[in-house]
Amino acid sequence: MTPHEAADLAKGRAVKAADRAHVFHSWSAQELIDPLAVAGAEGVHFWDYEGNRYLDFTSALVYTNVGYQHPKVVAAIQEQAATMATFAPAFAVEARSEAARLIAERTPGDLDKIFFTNAGAEAVEHAARMARIHTGRPKIMSAYRSYHGATATGINLTGDPRRWASDTGSAGVVHFWAPFLYRSPFHAETEEQECARALQHLEDTIAFEGPGSIAAIILETVPGTAGIMVPPPGYLPGVREICDRYGIVLIFDEVMSGFGRTGKWFAADHFDVAPDLLTFAKGVTSGYVPLGGVAINGAIAETFARKAYPGGLTYSGHPLACAAAVATINVMEEEGIVEHAAKIGADVIGPALHELAARHPSVGEVRGLGVFWALELVRDKATREPLVPYNASGQDAAPMGAFAAACKKEGLWPFVNMNRTHVVPACTITEAEAKEGLAALDVALSVADEYVTG
Amino acid sequence: MTPHEAADLAKGRAVKAADRAHVFHSWSAQELIDPLAVAGAEGVHFWDYEGNRYLDFTSALVYTNVGYQHPKVVAAIQEQAATMATFAPAFAVEARSEAARLIAERTPGDLDKIFFTNAGAEAVEHAARMARIHTGRPKIMSAYRSYHGATATGINLTGDPRRWASDTGSAGVVHFWAPFLYRSPFHAETEEQECARALQHLEDTIAFEGPGSIAAIILETVPGTAGIMVPPPGYLPGVREICDRYGIVLIFDEVMSGFGRTGKWFAADHFDVAPDLLTFAKGVTSGYVPLGGVAINGAIAETFARKAYPGGLTYSGHPLACAAAVATINVMEEEGIVEHAAKIGADVIGPALHELAARHPSVGEVRGLGVFWALELVRDKATREPLVPYNASGQDAAPMGAFAAACKKEGLWPFVNMNRTHVVPACTITEAEAKEGLAALDVALSVADEYVTG
Repeated sequence: MTPHEAADLAKGRAVKAADRAHVFHSWSAQELIDPLAVAGAEGVHFWDYEGNRYLDFTSALVYTNVGYQHPKVVAAIQEQAATMATFAPAFAVEARSEAARLIAERTPGDLDKIFFTNAGAEAVEHAARMARIHTGRPKIMSAYRSYHGATATGINLTGDPRRWASDTGSAGVVHFWAPFLYRSPFHAETEEQECARALQHLEDTIAFEGPGSIAAIILETVPGTAGIMVPPPGYLPGVREICDRYGIVLIFDEVMSGFGRTGKWFAADHFDVAPDLLTFAKGVTSGYVPLGGVAINGAIAETFARKAYPGGLTYSGHPLACAAAVATINVMEEEGIVEHAAKIGADVIGPALHELAARHPSVGEVRGLGVFWALELVRDKATREPLVPYNASGQDAAPMGAFAAACKKEGLWPFVNMNRTHVVPACTITEAEAKEGLAALDVALSVADEYVTG
Repeated sequence: MTPHEAADLAKGRAVKAADRAHVFHSWSAQELIDPLAVAGAEGVHFWDYEGNRYLDFTSALVYTNVGYQHPKVVAAIQEQAATMATFAPAFAVEARSEAARLIAERTPGDLDKIFFTNAGAEAVEHAARMARIHTGRPKIMSAYRSYHGATATGINLTGDPRRWASDTGSAGVVHFWAPFLYRSPFHAETEEQECARALQHLEDTIAFEGPGSIAAIILETVPGTAGIMVPPPGYLPGVREICDRYGIVLIFDEVMSGFGRTGKWFAADHFDVAPDLLTFAKGVTSGYVPLGGVAINGAIAETFARKAYPGGLTYSGHPLACAAAVATINVMEEEGIVEHAAKIGADVIGPALHELAARHPSVGEVRGLGVFWALELVRDKATREPLVPYNASGQDAAPMGAFAAACKKEGLWPFVNMNRTHVVPACTITEAEAKEGLAALDVALSVADEYVTG
């Protein structure tokens, strides 16, 4: 071992020791986790202090859309830090104005006003508040199989088990079922049938909840952590029509799906539907500096033109974060990163995943677009029984643990949620890198195959 | 006008135009505001594009504790951006480990685990959740005259008019009255009497709410925007004793009062009381990068040692933010900034404000410590009638508008809330700068004096 390697190892141990002593981690039993100490990251790779290097198929938490350490975004942060790291939200400052302009130019429809938050959860909090005040109605409808953040409103809107421990059951939230043909809540057999039945279910639920009591419907345009269920083509236009008919605000949560993830600036662009409010975060800065926000249409902006909007935050439109957003958007534009994400998804990742599905009995379904793909791992392709039960933990989740360990052994860091693995690398991933990761996935799926019973 | 000046003016107009077209501002009627376009900031000053320079008595929103553009904090951000701008929260990374260690070393009691959030509102959300799960009880008690953030839990806990529009009335929140001798809710005439009666009121309210239904009491250690009411010496120890007696979690919200603002690392240090949870944000990075968090004591950390904490966020422990925290804390330590804040408050700002109060009929009371001071402006010193009514807006608030305009004319940017002005500059303000600002305040108070009727 060289002195340099020994120093790295010692540093890694110190980083880990301080973490274990003092860092309280998200969504975790603190003594049952063993966080890897990470030394560095660049592009689609990161490495630890022991010299292990990983290809990152998670893009952190699905947010480093331009990859780690893009030099132009780094330089923009450095320059903004040198000139105006921070300033209070009540003022006009260049980075804030320019970020708002660039985002408003790209959001669909007339979503031309940008309310900046620190990240996605707060964006959902404020979108819900705007919708409630705009309509004067109390309830927000959201889908099962969804995630909308961990603050009180966000977690109550969430439709996955992360909600349960914090569910007040009285937060003005109504959950409904969105389309998902592979595990159809409506016993449908075709996309068209699934779409029609999902819209009927939504319409019926609204009728029984009372249309006049519903402020908004919030949907992840393409749901993320819940499983990347790309909706059938007619679904979102149908939801838009229902919202218009009842005066319900339509909120698209594009925290994960926005800024190139699906191969368009926003997932809404695939469906030619504009929401009334759109929440964003993650990709807007590639997460280099925390930033989120709500893009607001003309009608809702008008509600708050001469009446104060009752919400705000210290770091709304933080200059350093806004400078990172400006650089990220410009880099994505200049380097054709959105188009690249579409192409690598359509030409390389999608076809390769379908080919893996054909060969591996554990792969029940492949779905996605751009750099936003899910593989549904199953015990049995015919019955579609998930490889591990819904919300499994501990020994029940062992097959997914074995799959993840096999990925890591192959140098691939996988995104794993329940019985799924998501292929969600940076939008900048090259064909060679994608193929390297897919080859590792191939090996790891053979481990998953061992648990197949059907 | 030089070409340089003309270019500055044009740039300022462009920044303002894009702001007005696309930026949706906090707590505002969007067409009734006129945000000043700010060109730069350094130390305790900032300037616009027209060459006007202001001494900032607000430290942005009471957060730039080391002043604007401290070179060491800027350099640390630049260095972290160059090496690891971001990484996902589930890993151990150096900046995150070190920030947690430095914060845990400074928090009172055994608050040794740090859960990082993006800012203060989320810190309050998570502290409330931790308390509820730790105790298994539903309700949180908080004080009138308080602010705890704008997300659902935070805004429901808030005890000022910012809550009203979003108050669900059913969020498990109970408000009580904290001590404030100048406008005593308890008809007290001395600090001792106010303290005893406030504790009796809290005890009685707990008895009637049901001690077994109360998860936590949250208090700003020294309330901030609500008026910087420094509690009587016995109050917080008394609250601590009540909490211990009933198994109630005590949360101190030190988002504004922490990291040197009061002339100690935390305001709790003045009272020798350790809470069970402590929320922080703002000063921890001087706001250069958004960061907040919850410091957690041993008993509550133990609750989540082998049971998962049901909460988290994408940017928990964001490396860039944590690097800014490390640099801010080290700079405060190396440069004696906390001690300086104590000294400038005790030797310069406090005495000067009391002297102003003696001379100006509009100043009803001066209170505070460190660089955390409030002046209560009144129509009549005897009746204590506020210079403007509670929550006044528009024409009703005109006297405070005239006072603020007079400050700005003198080159001072004031913090104004209802009938109060707060003197809350950076902790680094020099004696000369403080005196410059106090002289401007003297002039502006003469304008306030014109509205005195008593």
